[in-house]
Amino acid sequence: MSNSEFLVPLKGLRDFPPEIEILRRKVFSKIEKIFQIYGFDPIETPIVEKWEVLKGKYGDEAENRLIWRFKLPYSEKEFGLRYDLTVPLARFYARFRPKLPFKRYQIGRVFRYEEPQKGRYREFWQCDFDILGSKSFLADVEILNVVVDVFKKFNFKDYLIKVNDRNLLTLIFEKKIGIEKEKIIRVYRIIDKLDKIGIENVIKELEKELNKEQLNEIKKIISISQLRNEEIFVELEKLNLKEIDVYLENLKNIIDFVKDKKRIKIDLCLVRGLDYYTSTIFEAVVEKPKIGSLAGGGRYDNLISKFINQDIPAVGGSIGIERLIDACLELGILKVEEKTYSEVGVIYLENVDLKKVLEIVNKLRENEINTYFHFEGLRNVLEGIKELERRGIEYALIIGEKEISENVFTLQNIRTKERKNLSLEEAINYLKHLKQKV
Amino acid sequence: MSNSEFLVPLKGLRDFPPEIEILRRKVFSKIEKIFQIYGFDPIETPIVEKWEVLKGKYGDEAENRLIWRFKLPYSEKEFGLRYDLTVPLARFYARFRPKLPFKRYQIGRVFRYEEPQKGRYREFWQCDFDILGSKSFLADVEILNVVVDVFKKFNFKDYLIKVNDRNLLTLIFEKKIGIEKEKIIRVYRIIDKLDKIGIENVIKELEKELNKEQLNEIKKIISISQLRNEEIFVELEKLNLKEIDVYLENLKNIIDFVKDKKRIKIDLCLVRGLDYYTSTIFEAVVEKPKIGSLAGGGRYDNLISKFINQDIPAVGGSIGIERLIDACLELGILKVEEKTYSEVGVIYLENVDLKKVLEIVNKLRENEINTYFHFEGLRNVLEGIKELERRGIEYALIIGEKEISENVFTLQNIRTKERKNLSLEEAINYLKHLKQKV
Repeated sequence: MSNSEFLVPLKGLRDFPPEIEILRRKVFSKIEKIFQIYGFDPIETPIVEKWEVLKGKYGDEAENRLIWRFKLPYSEKEFGLRYDLTVPLARFYARFRPKLPFKRYQIGRVFRYEEPQKGRYREFWQCDFDILGSKSFLADVEILNVVVDVFKKFNFKDYLIKVNDRNLLTLIFEKKIGIEKEKIIRVYRIIDKLDKIGIENVIKELEKELNKEQLNEIKKIISISQLRNEEIFVELEKLNLKEIDVYLENLKNIIDFVKDKKRIKIDLCLVRGLDYYTSTIFEAVVEKPKIGSLAGGGRYDNLISKFINQDIPAVGGSIGIERLIDACLELGILKVEEKTYSEVGVIYLENVDLKKVLEIVNKLRENEINTYFHFEGLRNVLEGIKELERRGIEYALIIGEKEISENVFTLQNIRTKERKNLSLEEAINYLKHLKQKV
Repeated sequence: MSNSEFLVPLKGLRDFPPEIEILRRKVFSKIEKIFQIYGFDPIETPIVEKWEVLKGKYGDEAENRLIWRFKLPYSEKEFGLRYDLTVPLARFYARFRPKLPFKRYQIGRVFRYEEPQKGRYREFWQCDFDILGSKSFLADVEILNVVVDVFKKFNFKDYLIKVNDRNLLTLIFEKKIGIEKEKIIRVYRIIDKLDKIGIENVIKELEKELNKEQLNEIKKIISISQLRNEEIFVELEKLNLKEIDVYLENLKNIIDFVKDKKRIKIDLCLVRGLDYYTSTIFEAVVEKPKIGSLAGGGRYDNLISKFINQDIPAVGGSIGIERLIDACLELGILKVEEKTYSEVGVIYLENVDLKKVLEIVNKLRENEINTYFHFEGLRNVLEGIKELERRGIEYALIIGEKEISENVFTLQNIRTKERKNLSLEEAINYLKHLKQKV
């Protein structure tokens, strides 16, 4: 049988060979470490959720076109593959009611049946961190600080975190501009396209929804949004809206307490796609090089009440890990260079006592040195070195009869071709020492 | 809405709270480290496979009752959730043709729609390590050595690795006992139940399949199997079967070269369920305490030819990680004790300048100390300490006005109640030092 079309997974699903997988793990573990530094702990949830858990959480388009939704031949039950990690978190909270505030992170696969394109997959990894149960602006600050630290960790210098507040937005749009409740979501979605389609096209689309006076007010809001943060606050205070002070105070506090406040920019046109956000929203973009959004999130104080009769405040963020990896590769911030975890390759000449060779290999491994052992005895050392080189292994340990009887082995750095003659114990120490340096 | 029945995932699927997830990661990473020491590298494959990839690989029962098999509403294509990690590996090899020998490990979820029971789940983690492309018995030896090291790592002392060879089995059953080819698999399956149903019941079931003479021969084989390895070799040589020498030689070599050969026992009644094994098979059991099989595997030299027109020899093993975790918990080898990765909790009194508190928190985090920050200012330190204690955090750093102005903070070990008065820098060094010791 040779069904070569079945060798490649469905479009949008991926296999990762070792060199890519090693790189991805490096990225995951850097980010995971930041989560832990900020006091987040991991949870895990199933890939498969009952359909009722996913239903009504993501909007119509997702529900009818994007969720991997199915029945099995063995049961009438309907299932879905998880679509994000936030709804499972809400379910998890409702099930276990862990002590609040509950800070968890989760890095894992989610599934969306979208048309695959560059950077968009049908199975991809999300990388979420959330704080449940705190209304404090300090929770929002921690979420933003994590994002700042992720950018720093990957050496992005020219990044910007756009923030906005859904409450503020609603207040202005309803109370100040007088847009009807039913229209607001449509208006949001149009404004959300500002970056993509430009101001003229946004205005054109808004003309269909709004009267002239309303349109002028919106233009004013868009132009205010171009100002510096402090100026925005001044302009917004002038609007003289009841309650606006509370929202402005909150936003001021967040910006004031975040680690890198010159990187935070209020953007009154920031909307975010998901329906469940209630207050702070943010999106973090790398400006130079132009990569676009690498993280986003916000407050969603009502989502959990879809599972239990209780409002639990919540704020969280998500690192766009797939785009981050793609971007780091394109920019050379990360390179696919480590092809293997193996630190040394052992090769031996064909006349050598195999038992003794294996003793040496075992000794290396007992010392926790990652050891690739070439099974076949060689006539020619060079052949073995080349083999190890193709595998991306850094050091070769060469075993011949003389080496064993004299306990002096050649340890060769395959790249530099530098050779050292060492006893087995010395070679082990040398390799161990290298490991610690990494 | 309060659909409490949807809060719990389908039977056989699990949520893992932080304390369990932290424990599972500890187990995974211990095993992963052993894989790396033995020169294995990770790959990743999708959860969803095309149906054609899974079809015809696992036998009828799996295909018609166990595989999570489905279509989406958006497509005519049929899919399945991966049923193990071996078939995806075979597909992966056929797709990419990596350099041989190819040594990979993979730890990940697989899905079987079985009736859930103790230790058996519908979504569970497999933990596989395989060597493709080598016929050498040294490859078999490496697989067994990994198993030995896993047992050692978890301090199991009384374990046993049963080995057998499918070729040997077939030779004896066909050529010596004269069992027809069609019957052999049925006979294997009966013998495989020896441990579960006992010798009498096995004989009873075999009576239906075999004539008296054949039955006597089988009894003889079963009794040979009780002997010591060397005696088994002697008895088998007496059978005087053509070709048997090659298989015996191979088995002798494997036993002779494995790290802990007194733990290896030939068991001629070992069959293993899966159809694809071709030569060496093994199963590793912990005898005392009676836990049962914790690892298994063998050679499967023909599986990859189901994807490409080429025979690629292969040998591998799988650690029964779910049972390992359950067993370690039951035996107290592992304890659910670490509830959080956070190393220190910061609490502050309500009159303190919050900006200064945050500076301290940031400083701890910049020094890579996992820091839980209690957002609310306290009237009473004790209340904060109790809160941290409930979270399982080991140290509390207490911030008051005086502490800040004098740069002398109390670092309290929450369990022992021991207190130290330290400058912030000293506290950081102390916590960093602790971290390195772990």
